[in-house]
Amino acid sequence: MRLVPMLLAAAVAAATFPAPARDAAADATPAGAETRIPDAAMALAGQLRDTALASSLAWDITESLTTEIGPRLAGSEADARAVEWAKAKFAELGFDRVWTEPVTFPKWVRRSERADVLGPHAQPLALTALGGSPGGTVEGEIVRFADLAALEAAPAGSLAGKIAFVDYRMERARDGSGYGPGSRVRSRGPSEAIRAGAIGFVMRSAGTDSHRNPHTGITRFDEGLEPVPSAALAVPDADQLARLLARGPVQLRLALDCGWDGEYTSQNVIGEMTGSSLPDDVVLIGAHLDSWDLGTGAVDDAAGIGITMAAAVHVAALERRPARSIRVVAFANEEQGLHGGYAYADAHAADIARHQIVAESDFGAGRIYAFNTSASAHAEAAEARIAEALAPLGIERSDAGGPGPDLIPITRKGAAWAWLGQDGTDYFDLHHTPDDTLDKIDPDALAQNAAAYAVFAWLAAEAEGDFGSAQVATAASD
Amino acid sequence: MRLVPMLLAAAVAAATFPAPARDAAADATPAGAETRIPDAAMALAGQLRDTALASSLAWDITESLTTEIGPRLAGSEADARAVEWAKAKFAELGFDRVWTEPVTFPKWVRRSERADVLGPHAQPLALTALGGSPGGTVEGEIVRFADLAALEAAPAGSLAGKIAFVDYRMERARDGSGYGPGSRVRSRGPSEAIRAGAIGFVMRSAGTDSHRNPHTGITRFDEGLEPVPSAALAVPDADQLARLLARGPVQLRLALDCGWDGEYTSQNVIGEMTGSSLPDDVVLIGAHLDSWDLGTGAVDDAAGIGITMAAAVHVAALERRPARSIRVVAFANEEQGLHGGYAYADAHAADIARHQIVAESDFGAGRIYAFNTSASAHAEAAEARIAEALAPLGIERSDAGGPGPDLIPITRKGAAWAWLGQDGTDYFDLHHTPDDTLDKIDPDALAQNAAAYAVFAWLAAEAEGDFGSAQVATAASD
Repeated sequence: MRLVPMLLAAAVAAATFPAPARDAAADATPAGAETRIPDAAMALAGQLRDTALASSLAWDITESLTTEIGPRLAGSEADARAVEWAKAKFAELGFDRVWTEPVTFPKWVRRSERADVLGPHAQPLALTALGGSPGGTVEGEIVRFADLAALEAAPAGSLAGKIAFVDYRMERARDGSGYGPGSRVRSRGPSEAIRAGAIGFVMRSAGTDSHRNPHTGITRFDEGLEPVPSAALAVPDADQLARLLARGPVQLRLALDCGWDGEYTSQNVIGEMTGSSLPDDVVLIGAHLDSWDLGTGAVDDAAGIGITMAAAVHVAALERRPARSIRVVAFANEEQGLHGGYAYADAHAADIARHQIVAESDFGAGRIYAFNTSASAHAEAAEARIAEALAPLGIERSDAGGPGPDLIPITRKGAAWAWLGQDGTDYFDLHHTPDDTLDKIDPDALAQNAAAYAVFAWLAAEAEGDFGSAQVATAASD
Repeated sequence: MRLVPMLLAAAVAAATFPAPARDAAADATPAGAETRIPDAAMALAGQLRDTALASSLAWDITESLTTEIGPRLAGSEADARAVEWAKAKFAELGFDRVWTEPVTFPKWVRRSERADVLGPHAQPLALTALGGSPGGTVEGEIVRFADLAALEAAPAGSLAGKIAFVDYRMERARDGSGYGPGSRVRSRGPSEAIRAGAIGFVMRSAGTDSHRNPHTGITRFDEGLEPVPSAALAVPDADQLARLLARGPVQLRLALDCGWDGEYTSQNVIGEMTGSSLPDDVVLIGAHLDSWDLGTGAVDDAAGIGITMAAAVHVAALERRPARSIRVVAFANEEQGLHGGYAYADAHAADIARHQIVAESDFGAGRIYAFNTSASAHAEAAEARIAEALAPLGIERSDAGGPGPDLIPITRKGAAWAWLGQDGTDYFDLHHTPDDTLDKIDPDALAQNAAAYAVFAWLAAEAEGDFGSAQVATAASD
């Protein structure tokens, strides 16, 4: 996942994600009508939960994607294979409708990367290019900054001919709140370094592990700046560089072979289990199909694909179909800018009110511990009943969270969202590293996730009334 | 460290390392005379222990070597810098005598390594060349063997044009006993694969971690066989390959650029704190200065260098010098065949009886929990008194263990050995991987090690009488 700043701010403050501004007249539920979950739907929730907990389906799907496709960088040869995989998997799992929607984006390629301390303490350092970095070989003195603010304070020209090093150490937290300041170093650092005259940028990885596995992730360069090679050091290598700097000046050679290379069109792959009475209304659950290239994208985000595909299958296996359809979206290229999420929101801009509620699983495979939605006041009782059905899974109502990253575009257009908050304590040990592999996933926790998504999707699809999705009055399209 | 099979067999069986066959007449202690530790020496042991426990010296030395030199593959440019570092560090620490002794060996070079699954599940796998492997690019179908015995059973010619994969999973154990069968796959596997006709060899790393960091280590090819590219997969990559093989045939391309490249002469670097009354008699403690190239050789074996250098300094800081000298040896090129250890034993073949007792620290930086020696019967009481002085450090007398790898050659020539057994539960998470870096060392555990070595060295150097070192009757030189 690529947590966006807005979501992060929300997570940090444990505040509710701002509900979209709504045109009250567009609300699908008549004034005074309360959305409710029928007792008959609640009666099946326990069975659904138990079935999902006992099933290995989410694991099997996750295993299949990570094993058969492996790393699937957006725009790579594996991206196309992943799309074919998803179409075939939806079909194999018995989804009623399977289709794709195109997503076009600039293509970024990583070929090689290397860094060497030069001089009397000559040694290689383990790092990885940030997504979006240009290639190039630069050699210069390292200037260390304890954090982003210190780099921002560097006078223009003060880093001429030098390589900036931001040594900020990200904090571990269950809700991932440490990633806010950590990822800001990645997104803002390169541009700030260039402003101060730097010829290159390196950072301590935005991660909480202690392995020689650097954390990649997208960066961007401000308009008008000439991009410079930008990379993240593995945590032990940032430690090493800091120790070397404590002894005196350090010269580094940074050699990256990577960069932008034209455009690519991938696909959002969508599978739907058709609803019984309101088939054009959908509960959307999903995850992103692409991954960074260093690992096999197991916790980010094959797990989400496994959880949401399995949840829909479990719902469809009940003795009757829910009223509304369950739509599972495998988003293209989340990592490099929510491209799949924006494309989906644009393609479905006229159907916002048809989206009963939307939820994305993109924070690993830790147990879900919290639940929240953006439900309007008239749907609070329905939200409470869903929470009641989730409670046996160890999930509590919460005021925190927000939509998954790919759903930010559509929630900005007025879709109601749900948040099933996963325990992310270990997530940033693995996120965007070579270590993001299947063995890091606990099958029982994965089944708990699938059970939670199944119960949520079933009850939301059975609700009498809506959760507040409605076209926003202001047509601020992203 | 490179645990040799003999030592491993001993560790597995928790048996005493075989005492060297001795010429009783050469025993330096007259028949009937018991070696004893003087009360005056015991009286200072507590003070020495406390000083060492409170000192950061072992850490400071380890930090210096890993930071300033970094990886130090035998024969590399960093090997020469490590030798200079060791000479300067001995001098800086106030050793009375510092000298070097040449060690010549064939030089092996690693340039690059890569493996790719080909075909419909195309993806890279993380691996590293085994030390001693030739370079080359081979492409062929993978044939999996659950363990070495299964590969040994493969008929000649059955692997023609194929790549053998030994998928044996090493077990975790405090005493490292899982490394016996694990490292046998590495040492024997390539030759067995060649005998069956294979064009390449890959193995699940001999390690206990779950990170994308493969474990290197030396291998050898039997006489008369044409070596083939041989490498170890990171544990998650071995898992991945096994999963792919469960789906059907797998084609792998293995591309290694590495190989032997002439000879190199490095140095054993030796520092000595001169004894007060028997200065020509030495208690030898040591570790190896070289490391594999993937990490900075922190637990293997900068820690041993830090522990033993610091121990000698702590002893020398007492109010009086011990009777015998404390000699610290930083051995050259242990990793590729105990070259420093053999060179030392050859250079000092005439002085075996001058070596009161020898001990090498080469099993990481975990707390020492066990103590044993090869002491002759007449020195058992002295051994018991040393154990008594070590007990407050949480160390128990044991019948297990053996000499460190670099000391096997000299113990075969008749030197008595001591074993200060370290907790190796986590050692094979790091051993020979990129992850062998300073941050993995617990400073308190390191200080406990230095305290144990200091107490042991002090008491052995103060002993009245010997521990059984004597030239062996049979001149079986290695």
